[in-house]
Amino acid sequence: MNASEKTAITALGKFRLIDRLAEIVELKQPSTVKGIGDDAAVIRYENAETVVSAELFLEGVHFDLTYTPLKHLGYKLVTAGVSDIYAMNATPRQILLSIGLSKRFFVEDVEELYAGVKIACERYGLELAGGDTTTSLTGLALHITAIGEAPKEKLTYRSGGKKTDLLCLTGDLGAAYMGLQLLEREKRVFDGNPQKQPQLEGFDYILQRHLKPEARKDIIAALAQQHIVPTSMIDVSNGLASDALHLCRQSKCGVRIYLERLPISSETFRFADEIHIDAVTAALHGGDDYELLFTVPVSLYDTICKELPDVDVIGHLCDASEGAYLLTPDNQAVALTAQGWKAD
Amino acid sequence: MNASEKTAITALGKFRLIDRLAEIVELKQPSTVKGIGDDAAVIRYENAETVVSAELFLEGVHFDLTYTPLKHLGYKLVTAGVSDIYAMNATPRQILLSIGLSKRFFVEDVEELYAGVKIACERYGLELAGGDTTTSLTGLALHITAIGEAPKEKLTYRSGGKKTDLLCLTGDLGAAYMGLQLLEREKRVFDGNPQKQPQLEGFDYILQRHLKPEARKDIIAALAQQHIVPTSMIDVSNGLASDALHLCRQSKCGVRIYLERLPISSETFRFADEIHIDAVTAALHGGDDYELLFTVPVSLYDTICKELPDVDVIGHLCDASEGAYLLTPDNQAVALTAQGWKAD
Repeated sequence: MNASEKTAITALGKFRLIDRLAEIVELKQPSTVKGIGDDAAVIRYENAETVVSAELFLEGVHFDLTYTPLKHLGYKLVTAGVSDIYAMNATPRQILLSIGLSKRFFVEDVEELYAGVKIACERYGLELAGGDTTTSLTGLALHITAIGEAPKEKLTYRSGGKKTDLLCLTGDLGAAYMGLQLLEREKRVFDGNPQKQPQLEGFDYILQRHLKPEARKDIIAALAQQHIVPTSMIDVSNGLASDALHLCRQSKCGVRIYLERLPISSETFRFADEIHIDAVTAALHGGDDYELLFTVPVSLYDTICKELPDVDVIGHLCDASEGAYLLTPDNQAVALTAQGWKAD
Repeated sequence: MNASEKTAITALGKFRLIDRLAEIVELKQPSTVKGIGDDAAVIRYENAETVVSAELFLEGVHFDLTYTPLKHLGYKLVTAGVSDIYAMNATPRQILLSIGLSKRFFVEDVEELYAGVKIACERYGLELAGGDTTTSLTGLALHITAIGEAPKEKLTYRSGGKKTDLLCLTGDLGAAYMGLQLLEREKRVFDGNPQKQPQLEGFDYILQRHLKPEARKDIIAALAQQHIVPTSMIDVSNGLASDALHLCRQSKCGVRIYLERLPISSETFRFADEIHIDAVTAALHGGDDYELLFTVPVSLYDTICKELPDVDVIGHLCDASEGAYLLTPDNQAVALTAQGWKAD
């Protein structure tokens, strides 16, 4: 659709825009007493704690609209929000979505973004229960508040890990970072020669991991089915090294992670080779993976291996005095360090 | 403090910055099961509904840092967040604060912002229970999620107004808008001649209304003391006209507002005269007032007048078929219209 065929937001007005967006996402949650259309959303959970998380997504920092479709962006924003709720071993139920729109956005663009939000809401069972809509003088600004519930005895904090617990990780690492590198490379090629078509073939997995990541609803369900409540849990969004250190610090433990156990996809290795980046570095510091890192008592080793096929035991906690180290296959111990200031 | 004496955020690192901010605001709420330091905040209210609101504040749209002190900005952000909670006749308890920082911000600047947040948290009895901290490539981006509670029977929606109810308003209108006009005028003067000192004397009230507005915690307390639960309520943040129309639409009613009953401060009149703006227009469309507009049964007229000194009865609801009108002292009926697209 050309810009000339699109509807200006000023032509529709803020409040009619909000009405239109509310119609796109009309899923209902029994726990939503009042959704969009009042000063605040009203929620009631029965016999459960309320869990609330916040994520701010800014253009140029968290996403580049030259290669990020708006529908994917809406989906990814919801993934980022609910991933934090799953990391508490809780069930997300509602989201509030705030959006700052610059002049280059038309009503149809916002609808496209909300179409992605809707798909994510359906997948995760969420109601869009409120938010804020405003203008932006700079880029697109997005914020998600995710709200969920868990019975007290199921809630899992970062702080519950014990010093002999196994360290478990879902999925694989570094792929989202590699997908971003691929898109950035093709953007540079395109900037140099706009006739050139982007070369993205053969890298579907890493692209999908960057553009349309999934939160691990399936793992939370699988843990519940096995009656496993992890002793501690965190979502891996800043990179494994940084997030493992958070978990250790809060659990007052040290950690040993076995390098050869880090799950890394073949596409991640292949593209890392192609651009001469170390795939392990991407896995440790890449970020944006939205996987879950959790600990369980060592007695659950067999259950984890047999019943949770997408979970790897990558190491174990130890006494805080023993520090946090990565062990290489030739038994070198490399101190685990977090990166400094990072966007996410 | 000169920039050269300040601490770069990169020097401190994201996570140490968060720790430092958490120390500034260390108020505790019994209902916060877990505050800052995990993937999400955990909240438990006993026998009450949970109320959640969201506000996005973007540089250049909601605030201008050339004349807005960061401490005031932090305070105002919290005011905007909790005003929505009070508008539900609920009590705010927690906030999540998300912040996108561009390179020109130093650690001391962020601490200044949080010092304002802290003062507001103390005033409103809030705990800063989480949020998100990230970089911004454009301006300063702020988001507040305010969370509160109310027993079901006290919760007040926009939709409960009845067709003979009195329309009541707290405080006065248009002053925040006039304060903004004054600051914008002095900025233009300064841009033209940087030697010139800003002329702000005699306008303390309108400046304070723009720079450090208060949410009406006192009114919610006064209503509770009088055992009054309004039939409907909304906070006046988009301008009286727009917000009154929202209330009417949701309550399926019309409205009559008496022009001569609109509360407007003498400073608002005085500065409006000075810059040749109609003070009533500012009152109707100015926005950013953070006052409460609510309805009560007509039988409460005497109680409202006697027991709630900072509340004015400015009109009444009527049948939807009678429309929404402003009545002038000479009995002209002017249709109430909302502005189009507005920042807030």
